Amino acid sequence: MTDLTAALTAADASLDESLERLFGLLRIQSISTDPAYAPECRRAGQWLVDELASLGFEASLRDTPGHPMVVAHHAGATPDAPHYLFYGHYDVQPVDPLDLWTDPPFEPAIKEIAPGRKAITGRGASDDKGQLMTFVEACRAWKAASGSLPCRITILFEGEEESGSPSLKPFLEANAEELKAECALVCDTGMWDPETPAIAVALRGLVGEEVTIHAADRDLHSGLFGGAAANPLHILSKILADLHDETGRVTLDGFYDGVEETPAQVLASWDSLGRTAEDFLGGVGLSVPSGEQGRSVLEQTWARPTAEVNGMWGGYTGEGFKTVIAAKASAKVSFRLVGKQDPDQVRAAFRAHVEARLPANCTVSYAPHGGSPAIQLPFDSPVVTKTRNALTDEWPKPAVTIGMGGSIPIVGDFQNILGLQSVLCGYGLTDDRIHSPNEKYDLTSFAKGIRSWVRILDALATR
Amino acid sequence: MTDLTAALTAADASLDESLERLFGLLRIQSISTDPAYAPECRRAGQWLVDELASLGFEASLRDTPGHPMVVAHHAGATPDAPHYLFYGHYDVQPVDPLDLWTDPPFEPAIKEIAPGRKAITGRGASDDKGQLMTFVEACRAWKAASGSLPCRITILFEGEEESGSPSLKPFLEANAEELKAECALVCDTGMWDPETPAIAVALRGLVGEEVTIHAADRDLHSGLFGGAAANPLHILSKILADLHDETGRVTLDGFYDGVEETPAQVLASWDSLGRTAEDFLGGVGLSVPSGEQGRSVLEQTWARPTAEVNGMWGGYTGEGFKTVIAAKASAKVSFRLVGKQDPDQVRAAFRAHVEARLPANCTVSYAPHGGSPAIQLPFDSPVVTKTRNALTDEWPKPAVTIGMGGSIPIVGDFQNILGLQSVLCGYGLTDDRIHSPNEKYDLTSFAKGIRSWVRILDALATR
Repeated sequence: MTDLTAALTAADASLDESLERLFGLLRIQSISTDPAYAPECRRAGQWLVDELASLGFEASLRDTPGHPMVVAHHAGATPDAPHYLFYGHYDVQPVDPLDLWTDPPFEPAIKEIAPGRKAITGRGASDDKGQLMTFVEACRAWKAASGSLPCRITILFEGEEESGSPSLKPFLEANAEELKAECALVCDTGMWDPETPAIAVALRGLVGEEVTIHAADRDLHSGLFGGAAANPLHILSKILADLHDETGRVTLDGFYDGVEETPAQVLASWDSLGRTAEDFLGGVGLSVPSGEQGRSVLEQTWARPTAEVNGMWGGYTGEGFKTVIAAKASAKVSFRLVGKQDPDQVRAAFRAHVEARLPANCTVSYAPHGGSPAIQLPFDSPVVTKTRNALTDEWPKPAVTIGMGGSIPIVGDFQNILGLQSVLCGYGLTDDRIHSPNEKYDLTSFAKGIRSWVRILDALATR
Repeated sequence: MTDLTAALTAADASLDESLERLFGLLRIQSISTDPAYAPECRRAGQWLVDELASLGFEASLRDTPGHPMVVAHHAGATPDAPHYLFYGHYDVQPVDPLDLWTDPPFEPAIKEIAPGRKAITGRGASDDKGQLMTFVEACRAWKAASGSLPCRITILFEGEEESGSPSLKPFLEANAEELKAECALVCDTGMWDPETPAIAVALRGLVGEEVTIHAADRDLHSGLFGGAAANPLHILSKILADLHDETGRVTLDGFYDGVEETPAQVLASWDSLGRTAEDFLGGVGLSVPSGEQGRSVLEQTWARPTAEVNGMWGGYTGEGFKTVIAAKASAKVSFRLVGKQDPDQVRAAFRAHVEARLPANCTVSYAPHGGSPAIQLPFDSPVVTKTRNALTDEWPKPAVTIGMGGSIPIVGDFQNILGLQSVLCGYGLTDDRIHSPNEKYDLTSFAKGIRSWVRILDALATR
């Protein structure tokens, strides 16, 4: 039998061990945004270093001002084998609200979530530990079957993807020579549907900002001062309510500069995918699209920019009631960018929007978060075509090229710093509840994800 | 020397012991709105029962579905002595944000807050433990000087004033005969300024409502769903921003029904008090009045109704950033009422305002809190006149009759259930930071407050 067949067989044969290894990684509480979990992030990084070393990678944990990077190299079977850089992240989102989890988020398990459908449950099962382990286990299968890897592989695992990747750019700049390859493979995206694999070629950018409105120098009794003292929650509500007009468009000055209408044939191809608003939103208990009127949900989430309030707080939020006028109120706001929107310009426009609505006596402070432009990748480069064919060989339906609502800043950094194009390919499903309680990753995503990478490594081995 | 002189002398002589006793009460963490502190509330009530019993009161702790009431009776010196019902509350507000307290909130101390100006610090120092103890200590001074009290006194101390007084009405109804008197004395209000005592004759009412907007059935990734899924924080911000128009008026339908313009001569008398917006707001770091345009801060806070957001929360509010669209968002909103505004009508108008702004797919839930109309008391009843004269004898400047921004629902309940008018007289100052970190009560407020009640009891002893 061919090396490919042997590697696929090896992958299937060791699936149980592969799951055990994934569970080991899922048990580590690597929440990167909360400094309290820094030691857990380091543990996750070291866990991966050990794992890759056992596969013959020259692997090391690299310190950064934040959480460490995992870097690993494998020479491949032949000296002239094509060289690829694989990227994933070992950090995960916070788990609040904890009371909504059916099982403890860091105690992974296999559950039957529908008749004949099993899933791996736990924080990070899908985003991104389960995904990155599909590649690691594919390498293990190739090693078991052929003693080596068909391609030369460099692996970069990050520990700050869920907290704005502050250390990533400096690290890429400082280690550009070591990390250069012919193309990057990024596994942090999803399938089109459970039967149809997808390669993402359009990604929205992201700008985040935390804004705090300050009024009186202390909390006030709303009976004594109500009607005379400025209330930061009123001011902030007005600021956030004014972010959208009645048609759902974002009102910031110049917000749509650099936003081009999506070509009709692209919209048509998306329409042909036949996903209605009911399909898209039904899985989360909604059915009527919000946001910009007169656009499909795929266009809204793949090709249009947005402004979203991700969090807001101020005043008394405990049990019972407290008649207080808060001294300050805060919100976390993020913008998804498309086309040529400039992150710095969007941030400046938001701050101008806030300050135009700031009454006398009140002040504002900001905490910026992230800032990455949108990305457009080639639809039909040789690597994309080989990957699409390999995916089509594995799954029931042919692979499709799609847009993506989420931003993966690493892709822009690979382009700008390493001069590398990326192929974005992953096996998550829209009902994986990433960033939410009860995150899961279908057992099929994991098993066929490993087999997919086994096939892709074979396909990419030949120039 | 007269009994009055002797009682005043006794009050001065035992001031240190009076402070020690107050500190004992201030050390009890009787936060009524948080169920976790229920045992502390009971402790505070029992502490007062023991205190009053030591003064010859027939005192008892009365269970309610919530926190217990303290009821105590003293027959007074003569069988035909006039009979008064004294009210105060032993519960206190929550202490968050704790990190803004200079000293632990339940470790009272005496601090020099300005050259020659000392204050008692701690949660409840002013609202209302310090205030109610001025009356208890005045009784003690009378007992020390004359062996009895010049009036017949019934005392009612409540433990739920800061959490909506759910048990109060049923308790008054069930014990109306026992609690009846000729007039009620309520000590939960403030001075006009540090030299001028005040009797409050106009009180705003209160309606509270907690509102929660529900959208998707789980938190969503704002990258995957942003632009298509309803965001409860956007919806709630719009609802709250729309509560006021650009002139500061509340927009609820029929909100101003029953609100009369304040008579010109009353406004003139308030203007003659000479308190500018800078005076009123300067103490809390503000200077420009918010709220209804074209009205003085005294009219805004004494004679005009308001809508205030007291708390709001939703989405990710922890450290760092989380690109989430929350499943729900909540706010605590309260309305101050004047004139003949109907609390039920205001609550209904608010709910209609919310539901008119609720998009398809979204639902709303409410948790009502309190609901009391505004109160207008006589300016010149014999009891008010005697009280005003007694206060004028004690303080540097003559007592004044004023309005009040805060609501004291008990006054309406005394009217409606016991048929009693109330005299509202207290010694708090506007910089006492009640409901805020670093609450305090001036030592002068406490010492002269005791002396004031000594004088008032003397003045009210004669019909």
